[in-house]
Amino acid sequence: MEHVVYVVGHKNPDTDSVCSAIAFAYLWNKWKEGGNVAKMMKIEAEAKPVIQGDVNPETKYVLEKFGFEVPEIMTNGEGKKVALVDHSEKAQTVDGIDKAEVVAIVDHHKIGDVTTPQPILFVNLPVGCTATVIKLLFDKTGVEIPKDIAGILLSSILSDTVIFKSATTTELDKEVAEELAKIAGIDDLTKFGVEIKAKLSAVDDLTAMDIIKRDYKDFDMSGKKVGVGQIELVDLSLIESRIDEIYEAMKKMKEEGGYAGIFLMLTDIMKEGTELLVVTDYPEVVEKAFGKKLEGKSVWLDGVMSRKKQVVPPLEKAFAEL
Amino acid sequence: MEHVVYVVGHKNPDTDSVCSAIAFAYLWNKWKEGGNVAKMMKIEAEAKPVIQGDVNPETKYVLEKFGFEVPEIMTNGEGKKVALVDHSEKAQTVDGIDKAEVVAIVDHHKIGDVTTPQPILFVNLPVGCTATVIKLLFDKTGVEIPKDIAGILLSSILSDTVIFKSATTTELDKEVAEELAKIAGIDDLTKFGVEIKAKLSAVDDLTAMDIIKRDYKDFDMSGKKVGVGQIELVDLSLIESRIDEIYEAMKKMKEEGGYAGIFLMLTDIMKEGTELLVVTDYPEVVEKAFGKKLEGKSVWLDGVMSRKKQVVPPLEKAFAEL
Repeated sequence: MEHVVYVVGHKNPDTDSVCSAIAFAYLWNKWKEGGNVAKMMKIEAEAKPVIQGDVNPETKYVLEKFGFEVPEIMTNGEGKKVALVDHSEKAQTVDGIDKAEVVAIVDHHKIGDVTTPQPILFVNLPVGCTATVIKLLFDKTGVEIPKDIAGILLSSILSDTVIFKSATTTELDKEVAEELAKIAGIDDLTKFGVEIKAKLSAVDDLTAMDIIKRDYKDFDMSGKKVGVGQIELVDLSLIESRIDEIYEAMKKMKEEGGYAGIFLMLTDIMKEGTELLVVTDYPEVVEKAFGKKLEGKSVWLDGVMSRKKQVVPPLEKAFAEL
Repeated sequence: MEHVVYVVGHKNPDTDSVCSAIAFAYLWNKWKEGGNVAKMMKIEAEAKPVIQGDVNPETKYVLEKFGFEVPEIMTNGEGKKVALVDHSEKAQTVDGIDKAEVVAIVDHHKIGDVTTPQPILFVNLPVGCTATVIKLLFDKTGVEIPKDIAGILLSSILSDTVIFKSATTTELDKEVAEELAKIAGIDDLTKFGVEIKAKLSAVDDLTAMDIIKRDYKDFDMSGKKVGVGQIELVDLSLIESRIDEIYEAMKKMKEEGGYAGIFLMLTDIMKEGTELLVVTDYPEVVEKAFGKKLEGKSVWLDGVMSRKKQVVPPLEKAFAEL
């Protein structure tokens, strides 16, 4: 077996997944030099961060800003030592995981189905971001956080918690972010968060279909085919001039795909609400689901940020009651 | 759902499993009062330690010594909130685990197959004992360890690591034990460890068959039925007067059970070796397996402490080569 531990985040890497891999690899290599962690496990292999797929524009921006290279892509872990960050589910991890040696897991999600034949370090905390857990691991094992690592950890927290607006955000994420901001020399967290999030809000180079499909899922709602997409924006004005074009693309998609309805969430992360763009044969579901009548192409839903929690369940109920 | 978190160790509870449940329940209730842990998760339910089966004489002695009641028995977790200590495998946990809400896991074993639908606190470290992990959790979350809790945590470490002689012992276990000993006011760790371990060495009230079956497993070795038992003793002299009686019971068991051989490990944890008591149709396997000829009823194997690692594999090989 090679003398390298590949530190890897989940498939379709986001900023937390990539930056946590870089930061944990750094921390692991510090642990290797001695201290309490070396008192409980032999750390012989050097850690190296890798990713399972291309980085998105936000992550690319963050890595460039703090002077990191984009890690190499590794999709198969067979015969390798791996440390998993930001996931503990087989479906989310590298191929060949059953023939890899998992040496550590650091995460903030539900507990997944990866098991090990030997005791390992596994730290999962119910916080908003893996970077928060990694910051605590630096502190609790007495390793100093360099300025550039603080920068990417902070970026991860702002990204993963949608600048502290996501329901998964905890007090601890906020405290840790403040501490990291001091180390990284960043004064205005909200401004910096918007700067990061704006990278995924850049829609000028995207086609209407790219925008619809950014984060899109098909559902079967009481026998009807329904599509729900979402794009998160720091400001809805960024997309205003494209609405008609997107609406026409949705209409075409609905006809060609035999949909009962297509719903596109244009989510304003700063205003904390969603402009729901709708093409459907059943416009009455909008009022049933959200208590607001659809007039024209869209309806503003105040406080609605989550497709999974706030849009799909009421839509399913409304279609069931048709 | 009840407003109680039941903290429970594995089936067939040993000292670590019981004492870690008591200590973690105490820690959880301290976390409930505020601090960093409360900043990441809502701790509303009061924790209560429970066990899955009767305690052994060693655990009973430890609990009495430090003034704790034996926890109540709970074998089914259905509809309950549970925190798992000293295990993360479904086979080791309470019945109905899939209908329980697992709120935390603290362990030192391989990662098991318990999964959760929500993010939780899961801390597993590759150390010799769950009590070591719990001591670190007290420290890292700034909770003071009371004298009696220090006593049971220390007892767990001495028990689980066989007074630091087990191969699973790490430097960290030793350091943590020293710190706990100071809090608990215990001067001589080895003496105290022997005092604890002696409770499981008490064989006077046991029948010969109780001794053979204390920790006994059947194996199929190349088509032959082979039994291997083990009893750990602080001093072999404790059992000397019973050898003939035990040997006769083994002979009878061999004939009635159709065994090719029965091997009983009388392990001296202080001398770190095993007197292997043997009844078999194939005495030559002993020399093949351990390089020492069987003369009489038994053979001394210096340094042999582990059935799983040091006795079963060479025996299997020897039977295969017959």
